[in-house]
Amino acid sequence: MPSSPIRRLVPFAEQAKARGIQIFHLNIGQPDVESPAEFWAAIDRARPKVLEYSHSAGTQGLRDRVRRYYASIGIELEPHELIVTTAGSEAVLFAMMSCLNPGEQVLVPEPFYANYLGFATACGVEVVPLTTRIEDDFALPDAADFAAKIGLRTKAILICNPSNPTGTIFDKGQLEELREIVLRHDLFLISDEVYREFNYTGSEMPSVLQLPGLEQHAVMCDSVSKRFSLCGARIGFLASHNGDLMQAAVKFAQARLAPPMLEQIGVEGAMETPPAYFEAMRDEYRARRDLLVELLGQMEGVTCPKIDGAFYAMVRLPIDDADRFCQWLLECFEHNGKTVMMAPGTGFYATQGRGLDEVRIAYVLNRQAIGEAMECLAHALAVYPGRVLPVPA
Amino acid sequence: MPSSPIRRLVPFAEQAKARGIQIFHLNIGQPDVESPAEFWAAIDRARPKVLEYSHSAGTQGLRDRVRRYYASIGIELEPHELIVTTAGSEAVLFAMMSCLNPGEQVLVPEPFYANYLGFATACGVEVVPLTTRIEDDFALPDAADFAAKIGLRTKAILICNPSNPTGTIFDKGQLEELREIVLRHDLFLISDEVYREFNYTGSEMPSVLQLPGLEQHAVMCDSVSKRFSLCGARIGFLASHNGDLMQAAVKFAQARLAPPMLEQIGVEGAMETPPAYFEAMRDEYRARRDLLVELLGQMEGVTCPKIDGAFYAMVRLPIDDADRFCQWLLECFEHNGKTVMMAPGTGFYATQGRGLDEVRIAYVLNRQAIGEAMECLAHALAVYPGRVLPVPA
Repeated sequence: MPSSPIRRLVPFAEQAKARGIQIFHLNIGQPDVESPAEFWAAIDRARPKVLEYSHSAGTQGLRDRVRRYYASIGIELEPHELIVTTAGSEAVLFAMMSCLNPGEQVLVPEPFYANYLGFATACGVEVVPLTTRIEDDFALPDAADFAAKIGLRTKAILICNPSNPTGTIFDKGQLEELREIVLRHDLFLISDEVYREFNYTGSEMPSVLQLPGLEQHAVMCDSVSKRFSLCGARIGFLASHNGDLMQAAVKFAQARLAPPMLEQIGVEGAMETPPAYFEAMRDEYRARRDLLVELLGQMEGVTCPKIDGAFYAMVRLPIDDADRFCQWLLECFEHNGKTVMMAPGTGFYATQGRGLDEVRIAYVLNRQAIGEAMECLAHALAVYPGRVLPVPA
Repeated sequence: MPSSPIRRLVPFAEQAKARGIQIFHLNIGQPDVESPAEFWAAIDRARPKVLEYSHSAGTQGLRDRVRRYYASIGIELEPHELIVTTAGSEAVLFAMMSCLNPGEQVLVPEPFYANYLGFATACGVEVVPLTTRIEDDFALPDAADFAAKIGLRTKAILICNPSNPTGTIFDKGQLEELREIVLRHDLFLISDEVYREFNYTGSEMPSVLQLPGLEQHAVMCDSVSKRFSLCGARIGFLASHNGDLMQAAVKFAQARLAPPMLEQIGVEGAMETPPAYFEAMRDEYRARRDLLVELLGQMEGVTCPKIDGAFYAMVRLPIDDADRFCQWLLECFEHNGKTVMMAPGTGFYATQGRGLDEVRIAYVLNRQAIGEAMECLAHALAVYPGRVLPVPA
């Protein structure tokens, strides 16, 4: 079982804090936005005498409400086509376990969300990475690259859209290209869409469940963690038009009995959050992205690709080793008593040696903090002993 | 992936309810006791603005408080020897994944908690059952029976103490016998102790973590679901004195990020519940057990073994097929507009053909309801077309 590269640095951060150093946490996708009042109101209203198990697939109330949400964005789901999961993590795990047997392979464009590897390990599935490049703004590989990786044991492709960690959005045209590959090789297409609302392109955000012809192949994983700033609630969703697949997922859901009940009650309430909440949130994150891109652009030797969505940037830095650099920031560096915590790029690649000079920055702090954090980073890059300036072209 | 035999009957129950029939739910361990006021008070006090991820191992506050609880019952744990899990389900899953590799075997006395099979399937581990018998009050097999089942791929023994579904309690002497087997074959001993407080023997309830010499072998799974009537909270614990094992477990915990935050806050409060809550609860369940045993004893052809703990009875009925009988109770039977839902015995055995004439009864309803439910059962047994009276000796 691989360690979580994001969480490996936690003890170093704890030691830095014990020394009185303030840390800007750009290492984890924990938004600073307030959780919606509707979440708390629903819990106050319900206040059950006995906090019972819910149905394994989630409470009827939440399932109905979430299906109405999906219908409102153009995804019509039958009752049996959706289950509530214990966060997006479990949705991805159930998707893998329902689509693949142990020993089978899932293709994943890399860099990818590091915990996909952990879920795959937990259920004995092999992750086959398809490298995407910062020079191409992490665009999807073309059909020939996919085909070269597809073998007898390949059963699924897993994408994250908008992408954690790159911020890339795969548009309708790219999803249609993926559809051709999926149909040609009879694969499942698992799409992690937890950042759906974090779309700064102005264009509509397509879901894999809206692709005609892919009804038996497409699986969507979702979560309220980011959308409602409810990371601690651990409520997510798994949806597919493939009834057999959902039946398998329900069996895994039954084995762990139920998702957390109180949080389901709260999330059913949170679904009533008015659109203004999301619009304000999106505007704020767009402004943070713009600021981050601007400040990174002023640093010598730093490459920041185009970022369309989510709240992450996968950035190339002039450093020898991202793991060493991120640890050094916590162990050996401070600027006015402050430092920065970021996620080393290596943890987002399955290909050995990739991501050594990249870090993932989660722009989940306010602009003041992002400004100060980037000032720290600029100072750190100037004095880091492992600084490596690229050879000029 | 096997279906949950307990949850398979749910659609039949829903249809019966739709026909206006009242169902006595003796099928699932959902206590009717009120969740403690301290749970709600802690949530009201905390009311965080942003419901954030907790530490993967659980909030510091809850971990510290739970270690104090264990210390109070004679189990001293270092900080790194305990993690918070998403209910007992995840504790058992993490225990299996940390102790066994895919393809390895865990010995489990049967009948056993049906979802153990689901967790084993999820992580590619093979369950090897060791049959125990209602005629022996489901006592543990002796060392020779264990030895006969232990091979090169055997890495662990899993027990549930007090036992779901049998209500058996393995005392200190029996645990010491198990210790010899575990040490001789260098196995892990995983003990699911979620029913610890439901002990009607008057003797102390031993934990596997208290066995000298077993520090590197013993793993304990726990949960607040039953103890605090918080099944919906999905908060459990995994503990071991084996540091390497806990380090592996933490990696699995990191992959799924965190247990539910709000429920952790509430459970930390619930830990302050005064002892009177448990004493009243234990007295009530003991009285329910006594009533159940008495009423079952009045039914011809019914065998009820000795029950020392938990709140289940694994009972032999004069029937042809427990799955058919339990479904028939929901589909075809009613007595004054009421019927009974129970868990078919077959779901608790891995050995094909075992448990056909057994059901598990969860005595989680008040005595009035248990009385009425047993009246239903007696009537049902009298008219069930598949009734099979045992041949007289």
